[in-house]
Amino acid sequence: MQDLTQDAFLCGKLQLWQPRQGYRAATDPVLLAAACPALPGQSVLDLGCGVGAAALCLATRVPDLRLSGLEVQADYAALARRNAAENGVAMSVELGDLADMPKALRVDFDHVIANPPYYPKGGTPSPNLGRATALQIDTPLGDWVQAASKRLAPGGWLTLICGADGLPEVLAAMGGKLGSASVLPLTPRAGKPALRILLRARKTGRAAFRLLAPFVIHHGASHDGDRESYTPRASEILRGGAALSDEFR
Amino acid sequence: MQDLTQDAFLCGKLQLWQPRQGYRAATDPVLLAAACPALPGQSVLDLGCGVGAAALCLATRVPDLRLSGLEVQADYAALARRNAAENGVAMSVELGDLADMPKALRVDFDHVIANPPYYPKGGTPSPNLGRATALQIDTPLGDWVQAASKRLAPGGWLTLICGADGLPEVLAAMGGKLGSASVLPLTPRAGKPALRILLRARKTGRAAFRLLAPFVIHHGASHDGDRESYTPRASEILRGGAALSDEFR
Repeated sequence: MQDLTQDAFLCGKLQLWQPRQGYRAATDPVLLAAACPALPGQSVLDLGCGVGAAALCLATRVPDLRLSGLEVQADYAALARRNAAENGVAMSVELGDLADMPKALRVDFDHVIANPPYYPKGGTPSPNLGRATALQIDTPLGDWVQAASKRLAPGGWLTLICGADGLPEVLAAMGGKLGSASVLPLTPRAGKPALRILLRARKTGRAAFRLLAPFVIHHGASHDGDRESYTPRASEILRGGAALSDEFR
Repeated sequence: MQDLTQDAFLCGKLQLWQPRQGYRAATDPVLLAAACPALPGQSVLDLGCGVGAAALCLATRVPDLRLSGLEVQADYAALARRNAAENGVAMSVELGDLADMPKALRVDFDHVIANPPYYPKGGTPSPNLGRATALQIDTPLGDWVQAASKRLAPGGWLTLICGADGLPEVLAAMGGKLGSASVLPLTPRAGKPALRILLRARKTGRAAFRLLAPFVIHHGASHDGDRESYTPRASEILRGGAALSDEFR
């Protein structure tokens, strides 16, 4: 993987190397990190961490985390290690598959975060993708939820971002192990269906499921060329690195 | 059941007798009827029809329906028959339980609509309720979905209204039999979590799950005394009897 770009996240608070081709981090890992209610000193596992975008965004907001990542592709895992080091964040990245969890990660975490690979129905994965990634895309969303659930301490939180069409599978996979789930629909424009969702659920949680008011990314009715079109609140999150905390209240 | 009131629905297009005490139809059956995509000539089963509010609201919008109702309480079933007759609507109401479907209803319907009894977590059913209703409240939401699924013809639609906290159970109960589900969150005020949801799902449907933009019932930030506070669109639906069709597009 020679052809890299270095991209600024959170208004330059974070600089991340990532491949020019293939999966590139955009707003999803930033939203995922914003939604994770981790506190200083807690442990966090980023399942399928890619180049480390979500975990490293989280580290810019919350100090003193114990960060771990699992990544199935060696070149992405290497970039995650490099990105952590160059941004001055301690993070241990393990190479491996969630179906065969590396021994080092078979411990209880306070938080698991996950942004599973996603292709909308009918879409075709790029032919550039390696076999490992293709396998990971084939991993059902429910398997991600179950792997996360296994890695959580009692009372620990799963925070997950996925396509809105994945909600039934995600909820079904929670089984009796995860509860107190809240879903934050993410919609590009007010009044439109959600394209993505953020889910928070708690191991051994017993509170009622909640369907929250949608989080609207852009203002206006359509994309306005190259002009900044984030809503003020989306800008606080995506540029300012604020937490999605009021939204989950 | 001597103590009845006669109440106007849809600006008086419908007059319904219902008991002064116990479950009283309000906006839920009107929203349920508005969300059902029935066409003239089709068959509709109202599971747990109560005094017939949802089915009869639907009949005011869509002519020539073949309407059936199932109701577990004899006095409510009798009121449903009376309400149908006094409003000039043909509707056959069967007394029985969804766990032991009466023979007359063991046929394929184009549509099933359902507004299962609902008590928010921590709430206590009124001591006035009879044993039969208590049983029905104890019937898990998932059993309602499965009973509905059994009664639908291939390609037929379930339309259901329930508490937002019931969404995981409803989706889990769809199994492989119902698909093409859309969820319309119902929220009292813009920016608030959904309290109720409307779900449409299709027997043998294969389209992706969709999480729609919330339907907002009231405008303003809080209840404004006795003044009409419906949003213009909620008023079209709840007073004017319009269909919730654009919302499901």
